[in-house]
Order: sequence, then structure tokens, then C-alpha cells
Amino acid sequence: MENFVHHIPTKLYFGKGTISHLEESLRPLGQKVLLTYGGGSIKKSGLYDEVIAILQKGGFEVFECAGIEPNPRVESIAKGAELCKKEKVEVILSVGGGSTLDCSKAIAVGAYYVGNDYWQMVLESNEQKKALPIVAVMTMAATGSELDSCGVISNMTLHKKIGRNFTFPTVSICDPCYTFTLPAKQSAAGGADMMSHIMEGYFSRTMDSDLSEAIEEGILKSVIHHLPIVLQDPKNYEARANLFWNSSIACSGMPEYGKLKTGWPCHAMEHELSAFYDITHGVGLAILTPRWLRFILKKDPSITPRLVKFAKNVWGLENQDDTELAKAGIQALFDFFVSVGIPMNLKDLGIDETHFEEMAESCTRPSFSGFVDLSKEDIVHIFKMCL
Amino acid sequence: MENFVHHIPTKLYFGKGTISHLEESLRPLGQKVLLTYGGGSIKKSGLYDEVIAILQKGGFEVFECAGIEPNPRVESIAKGAELCKKEKVEVILSVGGGSTLDCSKAIAVGAYYVGNDYWQMVLESNEQKKALPIVAVMTMAATGSELDSCGVISNMTLHKKIGRNFTFPTVSICDPCYTFTLPAKQSAAGGADMMSHIMEGYFSRTMDSDLSEAIEEGILKSVIHHLPIVLQDPKNYEARANLFWNSSIACSGMPEYGKLKTGWPCHAMEHELSAFYDITHGVGLAILTPRWLRFILKKDPSITPRLVKFAKNVWGLENQDDTELAKAGIQALFDFFVSVGIPMNLKDLGIDETHFEEMAESCTRPSFSGFVDLSKEDIVHIFKMCL
Repeated sequence: MENFVHHIPTKLYFGKGTISHLEESLRPLGQKVLLTYGGGSIKKSGLYDEVIAILQKGGFEVFECAGIEPNPRVESIAKGAELCKKEKVEVILSVGGGSTLDCSKAIAVGAYYVGNDYWQMVLESNEQKKALPIVAVMTMAATGSELDSCGVISNMTLHKKIGRNFTFPTVSICDPCYTFTLPAKQSAAGGADMMSHIMEGYFSRTMDSDLSEAIEEGILKSVIHHLPIVLQDPKNYEARANLFWNSSIACSGMPEYGKLKTGWPCHAMEHELSAFYDITHGVGLAILTPRWLRFILKKDPSITPRLVKFAKNVWGLENQDDTELAKAGIQALFDFFVSVGIPMNLKDLGIDETHFEEMAESCTRPSFSGFVDLSKEDIVHIFKMCL
Repeated sequence: MENFVHHIPTKLYFGKGTISHLEESLRPLGQKVLLTYGGGSIKKSGLYDEVIAILQKGGFEVFECAGIEPNPRVESIAKGAELCKKEKVEVILSVGGGSTLDCSKAIAVGAYYVGNDYWQMVLESNEQKKALPIVAVMTMAATGSELDSCGVISNMTLHKKIGRNFTFPTVSICDPCYTFTLPAKQSAAGGADMMSHIMEGYFSRTMDSDLSEAIEEGILKSVIHHLPIVLQDPKNYEARANLFWNSSIACSGMPEYGKLKTGWPCHAMEHELSAFYDITHGVGLAILTPRWLRFILKKDPSITPRLVKFAKNVWGLENQDDTELAKAGIQALFDFFVSVGIPMNLKDLGIDETHFEEMAESCTRPSFSGFVDLSKEDIVHIFKMCL
């Protein structure tokens, strides 16, 4: 087992009706609130009205930063941070999915940033200490942003999408009922996202960090079991609740404790896809992961035992020789993504190989060597496998 | 899934050499340090000298509260709290196992307690808010005190041993190497303790909280695998490290998220044994748990599916009818405790039935109804099964 540091100070309320903790959560943090949200789905669902009623009853002064994008842009950070500075906002209330919360984390840091080059702030922010407190009301089970300090921010002008550590939410409120109205496509992409968060750590050279392995295999099996249920029955509370808690832990760092770092190669490649083509993060990850696995298994057969474990413990496969079993596990993953309706080829999303060289150049890095080394040529090859 | 609240603000450094974080952890918390420890094993191991050297080099002012008991007594809280008040201590440094840390948590609250009836303070402390910060250097893998706010305190005059929420450690330092010198008896008792923390939550009516089930079964299997290894090879780092991280999470509350509460009946019964006979907590739990399971399976066969899951997923048993399988799982647990050298009868510890009625009276409570109801007569019966 490798050394690790565990530190997740967020208080998380999980379950039905936990919006009842909103007022008591905001109260000690401040009276001037910046309400951040996305494209308006919270207005359709009625959650916006519910939140506003609580804020009004509590006597909070509310400013709004609406329209945060699914891949949140640096321009939204600028808008929110300037508003915080101008109005002396004391606390941010993020209502939405991972994108809204990611952007809110960057705004929270931006509120204390001297100057207005917020892309530079994003680039520097792993060292940033000071941030406004955040209360997050989550409406999607996917990114796990409710239980980490990370945010992924896009700069479409520069074709860059990068993840940085900003700040933990002080409080996260996770009511699975808020995910009942998610379209099937988003539920499926969210499932792929949380599976990827697990698989990026699972496929490591470390096999003996028992609890991490149990959490990883447990979450993968739970998503595989419950995602098809919510696609058939979107208001199934037990299935939605399991997916939600899986997603919160999947990106918390806990599933990787004690394991050699891998550099999260599929996330790095997907960030390039999103930065150039603004596609849904979970869809890009679903397309990339099985191709990446096929490629690295061929490149370095010494990882076969890890893929055999994946095939046996996650997919329940057996009775084949190890190489076949390893391949069968990857195929099971691919078939699962197909079965939940994810488009599994880049061509389906209108993407061709025009920018592959540039994208591979941008995401090649030494830290990928945690599992199997990837050169720029390897990454171009993997992108081509995805066409 | 039931609603839950997740909130563990402690920062935990895990792994070899993490004592290097001690000075930076103490620095922002204060300059006047109360060093708490137990019977002197840290002096034999050299850890005491290592810690004192760090404190001296850092220019901290150090006061000592030594001799904290394995079942820490209210008298030790009084001694520590009075010292904190007199010397205006700013931070507590707990070096030892769960007992030392449990006592330190109570001292941290006691430092702000008006008056000197510290048993009354313990009784009231679930509502206590203010406490000194604590940095914990752990030397045992057992109680998980490094990642929770709970402490268990004994009053031998009143024959009472009770658990209360005091305060979380601000920082916990967990280096598995510090557990290399633990005697086999203590390693085994520690393993039984962490298994019990899991089983108290595992045996619940809730079967569908997937991640909690995965964590529970993962920890149980890991302890079953690694405990015999450390008994053969006490300096096996991988085995010690897995046991340590298992123990930290086992009592963190996480394994029970989403599950119906059970009231932790074996802990309640064991606290009576310890309060009357001062036995090792983990040994008492190991003796009680299989007898309790046998009793409740007979009393309420509707729990058979839960015990079948235990037999299959934890012990890898199969191919029997459900009732036989349920019983075989309990027998496997009993046999495991025997195999790691735990005395499995109360008579072996010099305990007879003299106080059983009084003990059962004291620990009977409505909250046991989470899994299978236990009357006072039931508890006396279970104690007798343990003779």
C-alpha cells in the first residue's frame, strides 16, 4: 500500500427532503448569497422556486449567476467572481449538477483573486488558499463534485479544458429525488462518468489495497446493476439513491487510497475532445475507456492479471484462459455502454481526425506511466480506434 | 436507502514515515501541548523519544498526562482536564491506541467544562460543542478512534462504561510500522474489534445500500485474510497497513450509511462485561458476536437471508440449504476467532453469571429493535451462552 492523505471536510446531507438543511447550512456562512445555476432545468423542476422561498423566508440577500454551461467556461467564472467582488457576496449557493458546482468553486476562489485574468487564476489555483464558502444543492449523480475540491474549466478560445483543485463545498445537499427528472441520456452519461472515475484508479499496478479494491468493484457493480433500472423507471428511489452515493464517493479520492497513481489518462484524453468539440464528458469517457483498455492490453500483456480481476469480480465472467478473459471483460464494458444508449463512436458525434495530433500533443504527459506508458503516437492511435 | 449525514473533518496521514507531518500539524493549533499516552509501550518502542525530539526542536511547551488505562477511566479525564485548565494547554497530542485517544477526546471537552464532575460531563457530552484541538499519533489498528468523534469512558466505581461523541481529532497520523511491535493478543483483539464495528452495522434489515455492503464485506474479508498473516509475520507491512486502514473506516460510520440503525447490541453487552470485569474490548466482542447471532437466528428466522449473504460473500460458503448456510457462516466466524487465539468462553476469563441480571438490566434498550428485538431475558440468555 502506498501512503495517502485523507481529508474531505465537507458536510454532506444525503436523502429525501434534505433541502430542509439549507437554511441552517447557509446561516453561519453569511447573509449575502450568490445563487449559481445552469440552463434553467431547476426552474422547470420547481427547485428554483423552492430554494428562492427558503432564501426569502430566511432574509438572505440574493444575487444570481445563471446560465452556467455543461462544460463551464472561464467567462462564467469572470461573471460570477466580478459579481462577488462588486456585491461583497459572503457565500455561494450552487444549485445544479457538477458543472455548476465546478464553476462555483472557481468563482469562490476568483472572488479573492486580485486582477481579472481568470484563466490565469485557474492555472494557478492549486496553490490558492482563500475562497468563499459554498453550499451545494446537487441535481445530478455524476461528477462527485459535491465531495471534492476539484473543478474542470474550459477555455474554448484556447481549446483547453483543465481540472484544478479550488475548494471543498462546506455543505452538500444530495436528494436523489432531484435526479428523477434527468433525461435518459444524462443519466447514462452520468453513470459512465462515475464508472470512469473508478476505472481510472482501478487500473493500477497496485493489487493489494483491499478496501480500495472493494469500494471500486462495489461501485462498478452497483452502477452496472442500477443504471439500467433508472433508464426503465426514472423515479426508482433506491436505484437513484445508490447511483448518487456511488457518484459522490467515486471522485472523492477514497477509491484510490493506497494505490499507485495512474494520471487518469482517459480523463486527459476526454478533456481534449470536450475542449475541441464541447461533447458530454461522460459520453467521451465511455467511448475512450474500452479502446484505451484494448490498446494497453496489447501493448503490455503484463497487465493481464488486473484485467482478469476486472472480468471476474466486476462482470462475473469465468472459465476462459486469462487473455480471453481479459478481453471479454473489456467487451462486457463496451457492450454495457451500448446497452444504456451511449453513442460509442466519435463519428456519431460528428468528430473526425482533423485535430487528433494537436489533441494528443496537448494531453501527453509523464504521469500516465502509473499504469502503462502512453506516447503521443499511442494517444493518436487510441483516438483513431474511437472513430 | 435511509437518509444519512456524512461529516468527518479529520485530516488523516496514512503510511510509512508520516510522523514527518507532526510538527506542521501542531504548529497552527498552539504552542502549549498536553502529551497523553498509556502504560509506557511508546517508551519501549522509541516513539516517545522521537515525539519529544520533534516537540523540543519545534519549541513547544510540553505537559504530560501518562498512564491512561486500556479501558480509560473518568479519573484520567479529570487529571488531564485539570492540567489543561491550570496550564492553559492549547492542543492535545495523543500518542497511543484507541483508549488513549478516546480519553484525550474527553479531556479536550473537559478542558472547557465548568466544574469538576467529569462523569457528569461525559454523560452530557453529546451536546458539548467546544473542545481543544487534538493531534493523534496512532499505535494500534482497532478502534478507529482516529476517524470519529466518539470516546468510550469507564467508571469502575459505578460499573459503567459508556460511549459518547466528544470531538474529532483535527489530525490523525497512522503509520502501520508502529503496530509491528503489538503483541499477538492485542493484534487479534484489535481485529475482532474492527470486525465487530462492521458486523454491528452489517446485520441490518437494509440489504440494498450497495456501497455500504461492499465496504462491510470488503473489510471483513480483508481482516480475515490479513490478521493470520500478522500473527505469523508481525512486521508484514502490507498486512499491517490493510488492517490499519480497515480499522479507521470500520468505525467511521461510512459502512452503515443508508442502512437502518441497529443499536450496536454486542457493543452494549460488551461494555457491561468490561465495566464489571475490565476485560479487553475486542475479546469480549469476539465472545459475544457468534452467540448473539445464533440466538437471534433461532428467535427470528426471517433474518436468514442476511446470514446467508454473510456466509456466501464473507466466508465463501455455498451448496447448502439456507438455514444450514446461515449457521455455517456463524460457525466460520466462531472458528476464525478460535484460530487467531482469542479465548472464546467467559469462564476462561474468570467470569461467572453472578452479575448477568444486573448487566442485562443496564444494557437493555429500545434501540436494539433495529435488527432483532432483545429483551432483558434474551440478553441474560446470550451472556449464559458465552460461559
